[in-house]
Amino acid sequence: MIIIGERINSSRKKPNEALEKRDAEFIKNEALSQDKAGADFIDVNAGNRVTTELDDIKWLIENIQSATKKPLCIDSPNPSALELGLSMQKSKSILNSVTAERERLKKVLPMVKKYNSYVIGLVMGDGGIADTAEKRYENAKIILNEAGALGIPLSDIFIDSLVVPISTDHNQGKILIETMKKVKTEFPGVRTVMGLSNISYGLPNRPLINRTLLAIAIYEGLDAAILDPMDVNVISALKASMALSGRDEYCMGYISANRAGIL
Amino acid sequence: MIIIGERINSSRKKPNEALEKRDAEFIKNEALSQDKAGADFIDVNAGNRVTTELDDIKWLIENIQSATKKPLCIDSPNPSALELGLSMQKSKSILNSVTAERERLKKVLPMVKKYNSYVIGLVMGDGGIADTAEKRYENAKIILNEAGALGIPLSDIFIDSLVVPISTDHNQGKILIETMKKVKTEFPGVRTVMGLSNISYGLPNRPLINRTLLAIAIYEGLDAAILDPMDVNVISALKASMALSGRDEYCMGYISANRAGIL
Repeated sequence: MIIIGERINSSRKKPNEALEKRDAEFIKNEALSQDKAGADFIDVNAGNRVTTELDDIKWLIENIQSATKKPLCIDSPNPSALELGLSMQKSKSILNSVTAERERLKKVLPMVKKYNSYVIGLVMGDGGIADTAEKRYENAKIILNEAGALGIPLSDIFIDSLVVPISTDHNQGKILIETMKKVKTEFPGVRTVMGLSNISYGLPNRPLINRTLLAIAIYEGLDAAILDPMDVNVISALKASMALSGRDEYCMGYISANRAGIL
Repeated sequence: MIIIGERINSSRKKPNEALEKRDAEFIKNEALSQDKAGADFIDVNAGNRVTTELDDIKWLIENIQSATKKPLCIDSPNPSALELGLSMQKSKSILNSVTAERERLKKVLPMVKKYNSYVIGLVMGDGGIADTAEKRYENAKIILNEAGALGIPLSDIFIDSLVVPISTDHNQGKILIETMKKVKTEFPGVRTVMGLSNISYGLPNRPLINRTLLAIAIYEGLDAAILDPMDVNVISALKASMALSGRDEYCMGYISANRAGIL
């Protein structure tokens, strides 16, 4: 299971304050702590600071890279910020994200090729977010075929099946998981990813919903998740689900996490 | 989701003490508390008190029935205890359990017919516990066909796909869920049940594994579970998974549980 550490995100209060004050120690500590907690990639997002995003991303990446060797997950709606981030990568990072929207596909996929990065593909098309697994799968197909045409290997692509709040439609959990399963069945070798927290928007006790989704999605074959690796409850659900899914040989990952006091 | 409250079981310390002392208040309170916490059936098990089981079961059922109108789940390896329990039922109860073992099938299924009860069928045959979903499914088929021949409707049968500890074989979670799915696909209308706790035998932090299994199994279509309805963490996982599985319209079950302070 690939963990993308989500803590360095300017939509969170403390990282945003650290950006404002250029508090390098805070950012370095967030990067190193996530590394030690098991993050495989460090997400970096300053997307809500539209006017200063490029400066912010550059400063964040410099500080992250001075604290950890873990690769980045460069997370922005802005192609210029994505390219700036990729130009700074020291090891193969993730571009987060491309969609099946024609415009975005054309701008972003060539960067993935140029910088030999991984990419997250959101199954959203020019028609917005589809409400059936079949239509979402069609958007995955557009991304995967276009990437294939550019020579980007399937194993460099993480498909995100779109986490929409179940409070708006109680079938969204099913649609999400069914899309993911269809993508994995039709394109063996492609990887799947989820940002969990949107699922619980509008509901009480959000962490309970988020970690329960993680447990279910892991059983169904999820390959990567964007999450807080320092959240004990999330990591506990992850380890337990890996053990229940036949993905943890001799349950050693679970037992080791318990020995390390993580569960 | 059908909840079978598991607390009145002589293998637990306090109920066993209550049996020893004939502490009726304790048993009545356990029955009523589980009823109020949402149990649909009250499990009653004195199976480890071999020499006194019949007296014990009779006394337990009398006290349970004086505290709650909820039907029973009569849980014993001993056919005489099962029949005694069924003869005392005031509303349609569950016989727990029959297996695909020839001897047990012949003794137990006719009781289900005679008393018009529900029955839990364990997918265990004369060859013991199979280690593939296909072979376990064959045992489910034996039970379901035999029950059908007696005129017992599919909807009165709960198939238990056999919860074996993942500590003994890390594929047991997969085998369990795959068996359940196969049974549901091949026999639409039959119901499925699990007693959760055996899954975590031999591992640390057992409640974490148990409730994570419950969350996954509910997504996969589990109909009933034998659990402690007074365990907040278990009920939280249940409610969250129902909401994520499209089985909780408008997430009202989840929201109500939160309002009631249960999550």
